[in-house]
This record gives sequence, structure tokens and C-alpha cells, in this order.
Amino acid sequence: MKDKIIEYFMRDRFAVLAGIKILEVEPGHAMVEMDIAPKHLNAAGIVQGGAIFTMADFAFAVAANAGGQVTLSVSANITFLKSVTGKKLIAEAQEVSPGKKITDYNVEVFDESHELIARINIVGYRKRSKLELS
Amino acid sequence: MKDKIIEYFMRDRFAVLAGIKILEVEPGHAMVEMDIAPKHLNAAGIVQGGAIFTMADFAFAVAANAGGQVTLSVSANITFLKSVTGKKLIAEAQEVSPGKKITDYNVEVFDESHELIARINIVGYRKRSKLELS
Amino acid sequence: MKDKIIEYFMRDRFAVLAGIKILEVEPGHAMVEMDIAPKHLNAAGIVQGGAIFTMADFAFAVAANAGGQVTLSVSANITFLKSVTGKKLIAEAQEVSPGKKITDYNVEVFDESHELIARINIVGYRKRSKLELS
Amino acid sequence: MKDKIIEYFMRDRFAVLAGIKILEVEPGHAMVEMDIAPKHLNAAGIVQGGAIFTMADFAFAVAANAGGQVTLSVSANITFLKSVTGKKLIAEAQEVSPGKKITDYNVEVFDESHELIARINIVGYRKRSKLELS
Repeated sequence: MKDKIIEYFMRDRFAVLAGIKILEVEPGHAMVEMDIAPKHLNAAGIVQGGAIFTMADFAFAVAANAGGQVTLSVSANITFLKSVTGKKLIAEAQEVSPGKKITDYNVEVFDESHELIARINIVGYRKRSKLELS
Repeated sequence: MKDKIIEYFMRDRFAVLAGIKILEVEPGHAMVEMDIAPKHLNAAGIVQGGAIFTMADFAFAVAANAGGQVTLSVSANITFLKSVTGKKLIAEAQEVSPGKKITDYNVEVFDESHELIARINIVGYRKRSKLELS
Repeated sequence: MKDKIIEYFMRDRFAVLAGIKILEVEPGHAMVEMDIAPKHLNAAGIVQGGAIFTMADFAFAVAANAGGQVTLSVSANITFLKSVTGKKLIAEAQEVSPGKKITDYNVEVFDESHELIARINIVGYRKRSKLELS
Repeated sequence: MKDKIIEYFMRDRFAVLAGIKILEVEPGHAMVEMDIAPKHLNAAGIVQGGAIFTMADFAFAVAANAGGQVTLSVSANITFLKSVTGKKLIAEAQEVSPGKKITDYNVEVFDESHELIARINIVGYRKRSKLELS
């Protein structure tokens, strides 16, 4: 099942474009990483906020859908704590409050020195449909 | 000045990677567009939330820095209103409350039929430094 | 129906404690007001953020439930734009994106000079149950 | 110093109106409690979202100002996880990322059974002025 979930999410082309890889996945929890490359930098030479958000939202999507039920992001709040100038980022998503319809996730993004870079709170909505795993 | 601002922001490699272009820019306001391509899609075949956020954050950055003072995103809240299956997205950033240190922007993302796709509220922090325009 | 909705929401004791009154209500829209009194002030002598949030959340609740279907706040984002030192606040809630299950509201809080004091984005969840109007 | 901080914040009349008491305070951390009474209930008979937000914002204010430098809420994001029907709420505010100008706090609200009721992320702005302790 875990392999099928990873295979399914590796069809996310925007995550692949950004170079994001899944490290861990289980229902309610996921960890993804991104090696920082020039393509992630903004005009000021630091990692673009959109790249950080993309990692966080992807980690949420992997964790929230890992149980097989389709779950969409409804609303997300990101706080940027530190400019990134390192080599790698890791995003960890953890379900805080499981609900039948509404679910709440905490996502934290760290750099390779385990410094907290950003915090993201994502509210998801569970649909009735199942994930179309191959 | 406007050309220099556009030239500066076209050095944002993550925005360029995502295919985002600046349509309009003046201090406190910007409009950017993104032609939807397969690279923007997630595993479910709809535009990835990260691509939508990246547009919005970029539109904010362009508008908030257009006056020449460096302004960073501190916190952003995005609400996803509609799945995107169309051909183009436009993000428009507008300053709501100008402050010397803290600024608040409203960003709206529309599709080509002018349907509202996402709303983003971004709080920025103005640094003392000036933008390094070439 | 409008009278019954107002009567129902005037049973909200925390809103009554705060001195909030309903000015307008229809499905998807509401306006409430609060005359500023010493009881609303924080230790610094300005209107407490909680009083402003309470108005905004109440305006949302009135608007979102006015159609008769129970709707709960799931997540809310408030940006405080200006300290309040005036005499009256008005909060106006407007539905942005009606959905069967998830609904998104924009709420704006103004003072008596029509200056924008705070912006609030609230995501609500519609339950199946109906409001118990007397 | 701690007594002076508590004395100062007990001048917050809206917090006093809501019946909120300070349990713990030190720079970067605070805990407050509220015994649930009929005055906190909304029309549906559960604790009003505004009362929960007021506690959380107050806990933030106490913690963020406890070092003596005036700090204001700029933006706050609250996620409501559970309806409250118990007897007491406790809000705990913890600084996540100390900055000279911008600070980020995590606030969690629990009921008397230690169940998580709401999560709040608050971004504050530190002014240059000092708190006017008597």
C-alpha cells in the first residue's frame, strides 16, 4: 500500500518539477525532502516562499490521502520564520485532529540543521471518493 | 523604473520555472499570469495548490517591492475555492493597508473565465534595505 | 424569517455581553455593530483583539446560518490593521464562495469613519442539521 | 516583575469581562484559564468562538509583552477543532521564533480533560516602546 501511495503521488508533476521526494508516509503522517538548487531561489537569492509552501502542501496531501480517501486542502496558513540559505529542506506533516469530514494538519519545515523555517496549518476536507491507485 | 522592477523579478527562478509572467506592476499593485501546463498538475490532474500559492506570493512580492524598499512575506493565509481545470490563471495583488513596517495585501487568483479560484491574505514586513536593481 | 434569525442569534450570550447588535441579515450577508465602551479595552487602552474577532465571527455566524442550515466556523484568519480608539465598530460579513459543504466568508471591520480596522477570512462547514428557530 | 506584569494585564477589561485569569507568565510563555459560564455560550449552547479567540490572544499578549517591550498582534489564524461543552478552558502561548521585530507564537487551547479545542498561530510586531508598568 505504501508503495502504491508513493507511486500515486509521484504523478504530482509540480512536486516533481520542484524536486520534492517522499521520505515517509503513513495515514496521518508524511515527511518529504527537497535538495535546494538554483531553481528554487527568488530574485533576492533565497528560497522562494512558493517552493516552501509547495513542499508543505505536498506533505499534507501525501499524509491526508494515505488512508485512501480523497482529501483536499481547503485553507492553509503559513508563517515564514527564517530565510533559507542551506542545502536541504524537510517538511513533516502530522494530523492534529482527525475528523470524518474536516481534518487539521500541522506541517513544519526544517533545514538540514533542524532549524525551523516555516510553520503551516492546513485544514482539509475529506471527500467520499477513494484515491484512484493503479 | 517599471522595467527595472520587472527585470529584477524575472531573476526569480522558481517563478520562471513555474512559467509565471508579470503583466502589471506599480507600488502596491501587481498582476501576474500563468498559462496552465501539464507541469502544474498534481496527481489528481488539477493545478497543484503550491503553483497557485507561488503565483500569489510572487504577485505580492512584485507589488510590495515595487516602491524599491525590500519587503518580505511574514505570514500568508490561502483559501482554495475551486479546483482549476482551465487554461490560464491570473493573480492580482493589492495593498490594503500601507504601514511603515507592516503591510497587508489581498491577493485574488482568477481563471480565464474570471472565476475566483483562491483568496490569499499576506502580511509583509518592510526592511530598511533597498532593492538591488541593476 | 429575518426576525426569527435575529431573535435566535440574540440568544448568543457572549455577543450580548460584548454589546453586539445585528443591523442587517440575509442568507450570505450580515452587518453587526458594537458601541465601544470601557469594557472593550485592553490594558493599553485600545479595543481588545478578542472583541474585534468576536464581532467578526458573530457576523459570519449570522450570515452563514441565516439560510437555516447550521454552519460552523472551521478556521479563521484575522489581520489587525489599525488600533481602535473611536466610538463604534461595524463588521460586515459577505459570502465569497458558496459551497454545499464548505463555505468561505470575507468579513471587514470598520470604525465610524469607515476606516478599515481588521480583515477576517472565515471558512465554515455546513452541517446537515437545521437551525432550531423557535 | 511577574506580579507587575499580571497586575498590568488585569487592567485588560475585556479579558476580565470574559473571566480570564493568568496562571503563568514569563517572557515568551503564558498560561491563562477561563471557567466556562453561561455568558460564554453562543445561540447553539456551545462556547462562542470569540471567547476562545479572546483567551488565546490574551495568552499571547501576556507572554509576548512579559519581557517589557510592547508587542502587538498583527495577524492570527485560529482552527476550531472541537465544540466545547466542558467546565474550563486553558490557553497556553509559547514563542516559536523570537525575532527583534517580528515574533511568532503558537497557542493551544485545551479543556479540563486535556483535549485540544483550538490551535492559534499569532504573528506579533515588537514596537520600540516599553510597557507602562506602574
